[in-house]
Amino acid sequence: MILYGGAVDGRQNWRTALATALGEANLAASVAMDPEAIPIDEVDYLLLDADGPTVSLAKATRLKAIFSLWAGVDWLVCRDDLPRNVPLVHMAEDGMTRGMCDYVAGHVMRYHLGLDDFLSGRPARDWDTTAPALSSQRTVGVMGLGVLGGAAARLLRDIGFQVSGWSRRRKDIPSITCFAGHEELATFLARSQILVVLLPLTGSTERIVDASLLKQLPEGACLINAARGGLIDDSDLIASLEEGTLKHATLDAFREEPLPRSHRFRSHPRITVTPHIASVTRPETAARAIVRQISRTEAGLPLEHVVDWSAGY
Amino acid sequence: MILYGGAVDGRQNWRTALATALGEANLAASVAMDPEAIPIDEVDYLLLDADGPTVSLAKATRLKAIFSLWAGVDWLVCRDDLPRNVPLVHMAEDGMTRGMCDYVAGHVMRYHLGLDDFLSGRPARDWDTTAPALSSQRTVGVMGLGVLGGAAARLLRDIGFQVSGWSRRRKDIPSITCFAGHEELATFLARSQILVVLLPLTGSTERIVDASLLKQLPEGACLINAARGGLIDDSDLIASLEEGTLKHATLDAFREEPLPRSHRFRSHPRITVTPHIASVTRPETAARAIVRQISRTEAGLPLEHVVDWSAGY
Repeated sequence: MILYGGAVDGRQNWRTALATALGEANLAASVAMDPEAIPIDEVDYLLLDADGPTVSLAKATRLKAIFSLWAGVDWLVCRDDLPRNVPLVHMAEDGMTRGMCDYVAGHVMRYHLGLDDFLSGRPARDWDTTAPALSSQRTVGVMGLGVLGGAAARLLRDIGFQVSGWSRRRKDIPSITCFAGHEELATFLARSQILVVLLPLTGSTERIVDASLLKQLPEGACLINAARGGLIDDSDLIASLEEGTLKHATLDAFREEPLPRSHRFRSHPRITVTPHIASVTRPETAARAIVRQISRTEAGLPLEHVVDWSAGY
Repeated sequence: MILYGGAVDGRQNWRTALATALGEANLAASVAMDPEAIPIDEVDYLLLDADGPTVSLAKATRLKAIFSLWAGVDWLVCRDDLPRNVPLVHMAEDGMTRGMCDYVAGHVMRYHLGLDDFLSGRPARDWDTTAPALSSQRTVGVMGLGVLGGAAARLLRDIGFQVSGWSRRRKDIPSITCFAGHEELATFLARSQILVVLLPLTGSTERIVDASLLKQLPEGACLINAARGGLIDDSDLIASLEEGTLKHATLDAFREEPLPRSHRFRSHPRITVTPHIASVTRPETAARAIVRQISRTEAGLPLEHVVDWSAGY
């Protein structure tokens, strides 16, 4: 049995999406939508969501896999009651990846072209016809080269930017300069006029974007954080904007969501806040990704995108 | 002899760029920068610019080619004194093409993501987490599939949009639905939530973007004109925005430039004006493109991007 343990208001859409995906895959499985109505020891596959009801896992004896409905699993790996012998799977699905690519490409292009200036009307008022910098002259750094970071970096490269990537373990992506580990961080940052943060939130990355990191960026750099609020030191970010080290920041994720109305990010003239919409799990495509993974398990194949408990993501 | 007949304030940069390009191509040629100082009957290759001094061509007996420093040649083909037996060449160069691709991709992404709304802060204020439409669900239409239109259409396709193209003569571009001619215009327009205009300005395209065309776009469509101001009927555009048929327009080219401060486009809340910077000819890359063409001629090869006088572009 597959049990949906996501947000209550998503049950209708997910029921339809799972039924469709199972039908497409020609896979027979019963699907339940309400954790309170189902004994947990009857569940083979469990879908969990930070916004869903609490599901106790103490007696989950049949469980073959737990699927996070979110790409990031920081809200799950901190739970004490998760069985370590059951694979925990990140959400990785086409809709979410494309949404993230759209968001990152859009905001990088916005910074690249200086769109905020054009919307204010200034360059047209002065009829300033200075040739703009080309994407081929602009450096963009992507921190985190997982499913989402890797896809965003490849798209930015294809658009024409000079793209560098940074990750804990070295990756190899054609025409992207890949840096790895603490010792290569400074070199990476120095060539990131636009810095895109797509790291997982773990003990090692908590507050990684702090004063010390921000001051290593080129003068007038711009920041896009579409991952987790905990990656940023909020006060250091504000200070860096005030000092002018950082020119502008676009933030999609926050320590507390919705971002409190009184938070300084809300009113800062050089911060754009978006309401955690960079990468939304879309039931249609996500159900297909989950059913594909279930098919793999049932066929004895290894699951993909499984959390590495030692790394914390 | 190569004669630069472009804007006077560009002479220094062009002198350097042409010298570099000739050196790279290992081509010996004298270069002159001032049309008033050089008898026109000594000139083999002439570079012309709408912003340059008037160069009389009556006695240009040696001329092998005229290079327009602009992609569009509407300002040249209307001249009576251009010898029809000398090839007239459009500017097509990597810097200009990339600049246009950057501009178009940036403004399409801006409309796609609704960036203007996010900059106003509204979606964050309401914490509206509705999953945004994906690029794969968004239709973009590109009118004009020449060097610039074709490149922009391919980039938009690669980003992930559903791209259609329209041109006078049918083109064939992989994964882009190509429409051609008057009879297919309606079908093309109906599937263009974002319409990008990159047509040449000719007798057939003058005011092509009028009330009748605009009303065939999907409700709430957005328009980007990065070609020529004369393609647009200014009054019909304003009316379409007032009626709500068109949601927003971004315009880079105008009937009169700089756009007069009193023009209605300047103050309209749903028009963004940019000062003709979508696609600027950059001396470094443009000089290379011209020298490559001169090398072709000297080697007896046909020139590329030659104006078709019967078509007017």
